Amino acid sequence: MAYLNENYLKLQAGYLFPEIARRVREFCEGNPEAAKRLIRCGIGDVTEPLPRAAINAMKRAADDLGKRETFRGYGPEQGYEFLRSAIVQHDYRDRNIEIADDEIFVSDGSKCDCGYILDILGDQNEVAVPDPVYPVYVDTNVMAAHSGRAKADGSYEGILYLPCTIENGFVPEPPREHVDLVYLCFPNNPTGAVASRDQLSRWVEYAREHEALLLFDAAYEAYISQPDIPHSIFEIPGARECAVELRSFSKNGGFTGVRCGFTVMPRSLLARTENGRRLPLHQLWHRRWSTKANGVSYPVQRGAEALYTPEGRGQIRALVEHYMENARILREAAAKAGMIVFGGVDAPYIWVKTPDKLTSWQMFDQMLRDLNVVITPGSGFGAQGEGYFRISAFNSRQNAEEVARRLKSLA
Amino acid sequence: MAYLNENYLKLQAGYLFPEIARRVREFCEGNPEAAKRLIRCGIGDVTEPLPRAAINAMKRAADDLGKRETFRGYGPEQGYEFLRSAIVQHDYRDRNIEIADDEIFVSDGSKCDCGYILDILGDQNEVAVPDPVYPVYVDTNVMAAHSGRAKADGSYEGILYLPCTIENGFVPEPPREHVDLVYLCFPNNPTGAVASRDQLSRWVEYAREHEALLLFDAAYEAYISQPDIPHSIFEIPGARECAVELRSFSKNGGFTGVRCGFTVMPRSLLARTENGRRLPLHQLWHRRWSTKANGVSYPVQRGAEALYTPEGRGQIRALVEHYMENARILREAAAKAGMIVFGGVDAPYIWVKTPDKLTSWQMFDQMLRDLNVVITPGSGFGAQGEGYFRISAFNSRQNAEEVARRLKSLA
Repeated sequence: MAYLNENYLKLQAGYLFPEIARRVREFCEGNPEAAKRLIRCGIGDVTEPLPRAAINAMKRAADDLGKRETFRGYGPEQGYEFLRSAIVQHDYRDRNIEIADDEIFVSDGSKCDCGYILDILGDQNEVAVPDPVYPVYVDTNVMAAHSGRAKADGSYEGILYLPCTIENGFVPEPPREHVDLVYLCFPNNPTGAVASRDQLSRWVEYAREHEALLLFDAAYEAYISQPDIPHSIFEIPGARECAVELRSFSKNGGFTGVRCGFTVMPRSLLARTENGRRLPLHQLWHRRWSTKANGVSYPVQRGAEALYTPEGRGQIRALVEHYMENARILREAAAKAGMIVFGGVDAPYIWVKTPDKLTSWQMFDQMLRDLNVVITPGSGFGAQGEGYFRISAFNSRQNAEEVARRLKSLA
Repeated sequence: MAYLNENYLKLQAGYLFPEIARRVREFCEGNPEAAKRLIRCGIGDVTEPLPRAAINAMKRAADDLGKRETFRGYGPEQGYEFLRSAIVQHDYRDRNIEIADDEIFVSDGSKCDCGYILDILGDQNEVAVPDPVYPVYVDTNVMAAHSGRAKADGSYEGILYLPCTIENGFVPEPPREHVDLVYLCFPNNPTGAVASRDQLSRWVEYAREHEALLLFDAAYEAYISQPDIPHSIFEIPGARECAVELRSFSKNGGFTGVRCGFTVMPRSLLARTENGRRLPLHQLWHRRWSTKANGVSYPVQRGAEALYTPEGRGQIRALVEHYMENARILREAAAKAGMIVFGGVDAPYIWVKTPDKLTSWQMFDQMLRDLNVVITPGSGFGAQGEGYFRISAFNSRQNAEEVARRLKSLA
């Protein structure tokens, strides 16, 4: 009988969002009246319509496919040149960052890239992740045999967790230990924290000293409002030798259901074989895409390209402003209710300390029962998330204002 | 320094299609006049416009995303119910095959699924592939550490190759050896062969006896013209206990650039742990999708759904008839030119024995030089492909007829 990948059996059964869904469903069934006023600020999914520029571009691309002269079959596995060059120009060259078009790899989203990237890395790598953490970083590593068993607190043996706490402003310093692979995410999901140039420089320094690889997730880059905060790890000198960047159109262009993102894989980034040979990861990554994929849907790539037009950029700006005004409203309401509040300035997430030493799930249940508002319990993101909860600003203005009103009653 | 996946270094550098592209480019540069009359019958990419039903559905879906009321963010990771149920109804229930909606997993294409499926399987599995073979089956296994080194003939140690020859009509019988995992592809790429009900039954029997898993690639199912040939492995009793089926919208709906396919993963299919515990693969596959993906693009899934409407089905039929008429023209022309010809009846590929004991690449060069026609050398698909070449019927009628005329000059 075929063998299965036993690493899957190490995964914790109770994944965060299904458990939230279960509790919400149970509550709604028992409280049909309260269910009607339920507002969801849990999952980080966008709510506002897609930018018109992207819709029009996707429709034009669909029409292209209807005519023999403009029909396109298999596209380049690594992405169309029209999109790769638009990305490089606007996200990098315009910010004085040197990235070549062929260092961009277009994908069907950052979540997918988190899994794909492990394809080209060895099983021997020692991995470090922040805590709290986007669960996908951890679970993909568990699946790929980069961890030991799950411990009672939900963490895994063999993975180094970097505590993100009030004391360090939710930005961990590099550890004393050696690791080969470090996940960083700024602006951070779930805490909303951002890393300064100095903080990121210390990570690049660590990575160069330890010859470690940084996987830098910049999916929320568009939400940075403070002028001095780096938008890309490649703003830090030396990062081209030690970092891969993950980007997404999900949260800026509202592409959560359209599916498009990309990785930046510098040609100068090396990794090693067991016997010490050094090779560019770029050539493995290129081969991975050639062998395992046929490129992202043509209309989707045209939609993503349109986000870089003046019209598209204006529409993205409006979307980001919309969500960030929600964030301001929610952040201020939580603070006025006497809670200790983080994030929500450079990120669409507000990270709140639970009052009265409630656990994250106690707070979840209380918010659901008393305010009919769904939040995400911080402990779902890791041990250090216990005693916190996350409010997502992805919502309509009306809902954000209503949640703010309800939060007042907690004061 | 981070370790790389050394299995990638076992991969043969000279991948088939880049080598073809190189030779064609060189020829065209040296022969600008001949280059003008070049016709490509190499890569198996569709050429005709996308069905109107799919285009209209994709455009409507793009418009859905432009309105708050119909906007959709993250979709179900395993695919929208509207598409899963359309697939089940038309591809299975209408053919009296019992498949449940939640046994369908919608993906961004069969090539991708070939890689994804290895995620959930153990490294210990003994793998068998046909020879000649779609190179992706082999390369994804090499990447996943399921093979030894490459041998001089381009095959890999540790993989069992099943010869597909004139003698067995290009349909291999089950081997005497035990293997855990068998790739089958019918209608076959590259030979165009199909397997009868009896032949598939012997494979299911083998799989049940050896508790092996069959990965059945039915990407070309729409091209079957003979009434008794099974369209799905699940037409064979017992297959629900030993097979996964891979399907694609690339070759029926012309979705090579739109990207959509699916796997059928029966709930009754078990795999084992090292210590003999048996578990449904379905639960691992479901977890893989939940953790590593966010579902296929919404407009793409709406496009695929539209292929099942009466309008869409009529348009698919017209496309298939178009390519199969090309296949007939090309097949008859090659036969009239005195060549020994296979395939092209239930598949869009014609598999031709090279005349005068030419090697596949010699034939490639001769066709390029004398006829200005690009074909695919059979040896690129494996050792047993030596002495054959593949002509693809994916082309305009005009091109197919012109290639047929040129083939006459070989007679």
